[in-house]
Amino acid sequence: MKRPTIADIAARAGVSKGAVSYALNGQRGVSETTRRRILAIAEEIGFNPHSAARALSGAAADTIGLALRRPARVLGFEPFYMELISGVEAELSARGQALMLQIVADADAEIGVYRRWWGERRVDGVLVCDLRVGDPRIPVVTDLHLPAVVVGGPEGVGDVPNVWNDDAMALIETVEYLAALGHRRIARVAGLPDLWHTHVRASAFRGACERLGVTAALTVGTDYSGEEGARATRRLLSGETRPTAVIYDNDVMAIAGLGVAQEMGLTVPGDLSIVAFDDSPLCRLVHPALTALTRDIPAYGALAARHLLAAIAGQPVGSVQDATAKLVPRASTARPTTST
Amino acid sequence: MKRPTIADIAARAGVSKGAVSYALNGQRGVSETTRRRILAIAEEIGFNPHSAARALSGAAADTIGLALRRPARVLGFEPFYMELISGVEAELSARGQALMLQIVADADAEIGVYRRWWGERRVDGVLVCDLRVGDPRIPVVTDLHLPAVVVGGPEGVGDVPNVWNDDAMALIETVEYLAALGHRRIARVAGLPDLWHTHVRASAFRGACERLGVTAALTVGTDYSGEEGARATRRLLSGETRPTAVIYDNDVMAIAGLGVAQEMGLTVPGDLSIVAFDDSPLCRLVHPALTALTRDIPAYGALAARHLLAAIAGQPVGSVQDATAKLVPRASTARPTTST
Repeated sequence: MKRPTIADIAARAGVSKGAVSYALNGQRGVSETTRRRILAIAEEIGFNPHSAARALSGAAADTIGLALRRPARVLGFEPFYMELISGVEAELSARGQALMLQIVADADAEIGVYRRWWGERRVDGVLVCDLRVGDPRIPVVTDLHLPAVVVGGPEGVGDVPNVWNDDAMALIETVEYLAALGHRRIARVAGLPDLWHTHVRASAFRGACERLGVTAALTVGTDYSGEEGARATRRLLSGETRPTAVIYDNDVMAIAGLGVAQEMGLTVPGDLSIVAFDDSPLCRLVHPALTALTRDIPAYGALAARHLLAAIAGQPVGSVQDATAKLVPRASTARPTTST
Repeated sequence: MKRPTIADIAARAGVSKGAVSYALNGQRGVSETTRRRILAIAEEIGFNPHSAARALSGAAADTIGLALRRPARVLGFEPFYMELISGVEAELSARGQALMLQIVADADAEIGVYRRWWGERRVDGVLVCDLRVGDPRIPVVTDLHLPAVVVGGPEGVGDVPNVWNDDAMALIETVEYLAALGHRRIARVAGLPDLWHTHVRASAFRGACERLGVTAALTVGTDYSGEEGARATRRLLSGETRPTAVIYDNDVMAIAGLGVAQEMGLTVPGDLSIVAFDDSPLCRLVHPALTALTRDIPAYGALAARHLLAAIAGQPVGSVQDATAKLVPRASTARPTTST
């Protein structure tokens, strides 16, 4: 159970520890042939310069941290995070950086994780996701001087660098499209109400409906889970004045909403048009395929990672806007055929 | 951008660095009042004992590693991993351990990650997922003496500890149920063919079909993605002798298969019965709800984490069997009504 040391390499190569040290550090004192042999042995037995020694000498941890605060059952079926993480990872691996991941129960736990990671020099910086209204993490990372990039904003991030996209514009485009199709009663199944982007989407939705003379039917808040998406849809479709279109804040809830419409004997899109925010592959694979606001989430993650690495390197970084989600009409939206 | 040091605490508390050191290490030499004040300041400014210093002194990294080798687009919508990770995390957080996550492109990259993590003492051990036939990672972790637990097996793990569940039994139970309903032509949409558990399921499927006099119709291999699940289903349903039931190796493909059946005008379960392996919430939320082989994946992840921490602690660990997946019949399976 012993990790390989310079002594192990020396023993295998039949040379002194000094010679191994010269070879590993690219110094004179060993022949090229011996150097190659020593490097091959080091590779073979899995020797690497000791990261703890490097960290003590002031080098970076070469690791960034990501703490996610969502219940396990929601994370399990929320494609957004895995797509974001895969984009972050692509950028990190290319630069020899690692990702420390932690799932936390609440804001206090998340702040505790930041303090520990930074205090123990386990990470060089963090990505802050799920920006909340009055988010307590913003003053904490600022006070700790912990390099951070918020995935969200631009409002509510203080002086912390951030990457964001224009959810308001995406929602306005969607309402305009549904209104042009003839919908006059549009509902929204929204995500967690204390998240900034839920707030941004809600304002944009209300504003667009007002401007276009559309009745903004009930907005139902959820935790983004399919279960709550289904329950919200059942509630909307059981009301006296049924909406003819529903916009969902993620794709999992939209798929659940489609299931509820079918269960209640409504046709999609005849009786009900459905639009999903985010566009994972299942949106194209259910029947009918779902109209969705699509965006490249791995690219968003990669952008956030690059931005954070720049901040860690001490480069001046500020607020960067990513591409706005695009409306991709598929078979789940059409002119309303029923009037209720 | 400076991390807090003992000197910072000393300056704030108006005491010597030695006094801070005594207080932090619980040694005599400072009054209880001063000790409390010093600890409060340390907490406030985010001071923690230096992890690099602890690592150099031979302490553990308090981190375990997980390298996942799947394309980003598959990971994004494969609930299995996030559910597994959330179970692993629950166990780790309770013990102050962290998770290092890396997504890799191929086996060589994964082995390189293991060598680096272990050589640099970034992790105390690793979880090895997606066990393959003739898996090259098994001799590598063995040679490196890197503590590891395979999530899979029990065959093909060599002397490496593992946690596993009986996929063969789950598949046999499913075939028996479908046969009892009257199905005589059953197909399988399988996962990656080089994974051990795909192999195990294939043998169990063939054996059960043979024993029960059921025609084991085509088995189509996929990469577990919804896209390939849809394509496989289209191929199965377009053949001359259509199966009356299909068993899918995960839930995403089963949901995609339901979409294809609806697109082709077949009723589920009348024309086609569908069974999903794994049972994420969407299986209950699509219409009709899918019959599924359900198991507690977070609990499986927690078990794997506990097993790994025991191995790291030097306790004797071997092979542990987790609960077998249970067949939960829902609305997507019934007696076949058509004969083709």
